[in-house]
Parts: sequence; C-alpha cells; structure tokens
Amino acid sequence: MNKRINIVAGGPIQHIPNLSTYNDENTLWVGVDRGVYYLLKHEINPTIAIGDFDSVSEEEWKVIQQTVNELEIHQPEKDETDMELALDWSTSKEPSSIKIFGATGGRLDHFLANAFMLVKYQKPRSYPIEMIDKQNDIAIFFPGQYQIKQDKDKKYISFISLSHEINCLSLTGFKYPLVDQNVAFTSSLCISNELIQKTGTFSFEKGILMMVRSND
Amino acid sequence: MNKRINIVAGGPIQHIPNLSTYNDENTLWVGVDRGVYYLLKHEINPTIAIGDFDSVSEEEWKVIQQTVNELEIHQPEKDETDMELALDWSTSKEPSSIKIFGATGGRLDHFLANAFMLVKYQKPRSYPIEMIDKQNDIAIFFPGQYQIKQDKDKKYISFISLSHEINCLSLTGFKYPLVDQNVAFTSSLCISNELIQKTGTFSFEKGILMMVRSND
Repeated sequence: MNKRINIVAGGPIQHIPNLSTYNDENTLWVGVDRGVYYLLKHEINPTIAIGDFDSVSEEEWKVIQQTVNELEIHQPEKDETDMELALDWSTSKEPSSIKIFGATGGRLDHFLANAFMLVKYQKPRSYPIEMIDKQNDIAIFFPGQYQIKQDKDKKYISFISLSHEINCLSLTGFKYPLVDQNVAFTSSLCISNELIQKTGTFSFEKGILMMVRSND
Repeated sequence: MNKRINIVAGGPIQHIPNLSTYNDENTLWVGVDRGVYYLLKHEINPTIAIGDFDSVSEEEWKVIQQTVNELEIHQPEKDETDMELALDWSTSKEPSSIKIFGATGGRLDHFLANAFMLVKYQKPRSYPIEMIDKQNDIAIFFPGQYQIKQDKDKKYISFISLSHEINCLSLTGFKYPLVDQNVAFTSSLCISNELIQKTGTFSFEKGILMMVRSND
C-alpha cells in the first residue's frame, strides 16, 4: 500500500492545523475517540473510528454511528490506549507515512505518553511517523544519517535525547553545526537550531533522538 | 532559607493558573523573559528578572527596567537556556520548594527541554521542583518511597518512565494498584490512574519517574 495514513485524536482543537492541507485521494484517515467527530465536522469521513468513545456526547455518537463505515469500539478500562490501538491498525496497513494530529496540548500525560510511544512504533519502520500541531512537528530517529529540508513555517529545529545520551551527533547546514558531539539526556545544547542552507544533514551513532521542528 | 520560589516563564498565558493562589509573604518570584511582564501585569513584583529579553517589546522593556530591582541580562546566543539560569539562581537560595509556571504549551521543544531539565535540578535536592499549569502538575522522582494526597482538582495521576525502565513500581491506595511491576519507557501502563483513598504511596527501586497529575 502506498497510501498515507493520518490519525486524528481528541486533543484541544485549537492546536490542530488545517487538515485539508493534508488531504488527497491517497490519504486514509483514522479517527480516535472525539477526533472522529472533529473529522466529520470538517467533512472528512474516516476509514475507521477507534476508541472507547467515552468523551463524545450521545448526539455526537449517533452521528458517528450513522456515518463511519468501520467502528472499532473498546472498553474504557483496557491495557492499551486508544492511540496505541490506532497505531496498531495503521502500521498493519504498511502505509508510506503516518501523521498524528490532535495529540498535543491539554493533558500532558497523554501528550508525553503519545510522544514516547512514537519510539516503539517508529523503531522497526522506515517510513516517517510524525506528530503534528500548528506550531510543532515531532519525529523520532535511530542511529544513522538523515537529510532534511528547510521549512520556513517551522524554522526552529531542536534535537532532544530520549536515551541516556546521543553519541557522536553531527549537524551540517545548520546555524550551529556540530561534529561528533555527545548530547546527554537533560541537555539543552541542541534547542532552537536553524537550517541556514536549503538542506542539511544530521547523523549519530547511538541513542534515541527526538527532532522537534517549530515556530514561535 | 524557608521561602518558596515561584518561577514564571513566557509560555502561552492561557495555560497559567491564577498566580495569586500561590502568593504569600513567604514566596519569592523569579520572572524569566516575557514572564516578567506577565508578573508585573498581575501586580507581582519579582525579586529578580532573568533572560535575554528578546521576546519583550521596547515598551514592556521600559516598564521592566523601571520596576524590577535585580536584572540578570544574558546574550541571546548562550549555552544555557533562560530556564536553566533561573533554576541556577533559584536552587542557590536553598528554598523549601520551586514551582515553575508558563513553561508549558506553545513550542514543544521548549516544554520538553524544561520538563527533562527537572531531572537534573531535582536529583540532588529533597524539596519538590514542580512544573504547573491549569491542567497539569509535573514532578520528578528518584528511587524511594513517597506518600501523596488526593487532589480533587487534578484527579488523574500518571507515572511515566524517563529511563529505560522503572524497576519494581508499587502503588497503594490507587484505583489500579501495582506490586513490584517493571514499567518500560514507552509503556502506557501507568497512564490515568486515580487515588481512591485520601492518601496513597508509590515506591520503586531503579529509574527516573515522572509523575503527572492532571484533569480533563
């Protein structure tokens, strides 16, 4: 399958960017819990709706049942979170990318659990799994070399270690370049960098790296 | 010194709770960058203002200069973040607690760097260092046993591993109790627990634990 999959969860709607920018005939949509209703309100009919739906009203639930073809309803008290179930379904389709919306803001335990969950789902896969809101793009990387392009809408690029240390981080094309620098967990060394060339590279040898691209 | 120190950074103001609740004669206030202006607008005169102040207008800068006694002005391009400098100053005073406001929302690289920085500043200290917004209280714990009280305003309690694993986590007094459970980084097992008794305990033997108390 070459389709892109976009997941929309029920986070605060003021953080969700204009979803029509991310929609075309090659995109499948997955609604998670209250995110399903948000998609329907924006005239996107998701392929599947996943969740325990304890956060939608009776009225909204009627609309969801009448409109969405595939419903995967779970008990509220289960081991997996709704987002894990949505990522299980999405990765099973072997898409070309997964983008997650509506998973930032509000409850920070939910945001952090979702952000760290990217590690588990990204690791065995070569396609990008990103978490996106109006101000931020979050992605996870494992050791290797990567090329990235300038994005004028999200000009700041921060690298954050999610492991004890990132070993031998090198950055080229950046305002603050690095050569083989070790970056500890809790270090703020790589916060608020910027690409000064149209493309840049980053590489590292050991660790789990989170990249956040953002604007003010 | 037995004073409490409250730090206010320049994050989105809609997430900052009513600060007067946290103010009394035993409280010192530290303004960070644009947070200084927010404090002055709410009639709290900080003991010290720290930052590069590249995010305040000329008008706001005039007010800050005229009002705040102690200014610690840094170059925008420095190794430490403004929050690190504020935490350096605050911990040097040996207060009874440190609470951080205005550090959530907006740019998630800033939020994550600040949240992980709590690890570095909490580790050698016995008093609590917390990050607080309207919906969330975040704190860091190292191995040991801890007692906590019910907080009806933030009823959900989540435990998130910031290390490879949390070893032997036990929870008593909680809706979902645990005995000697290992919790991996990226696990969502301990998201959205609740205290069902007025007090509860948690303990663990190895790892770095983040506790997030929140409401919907």
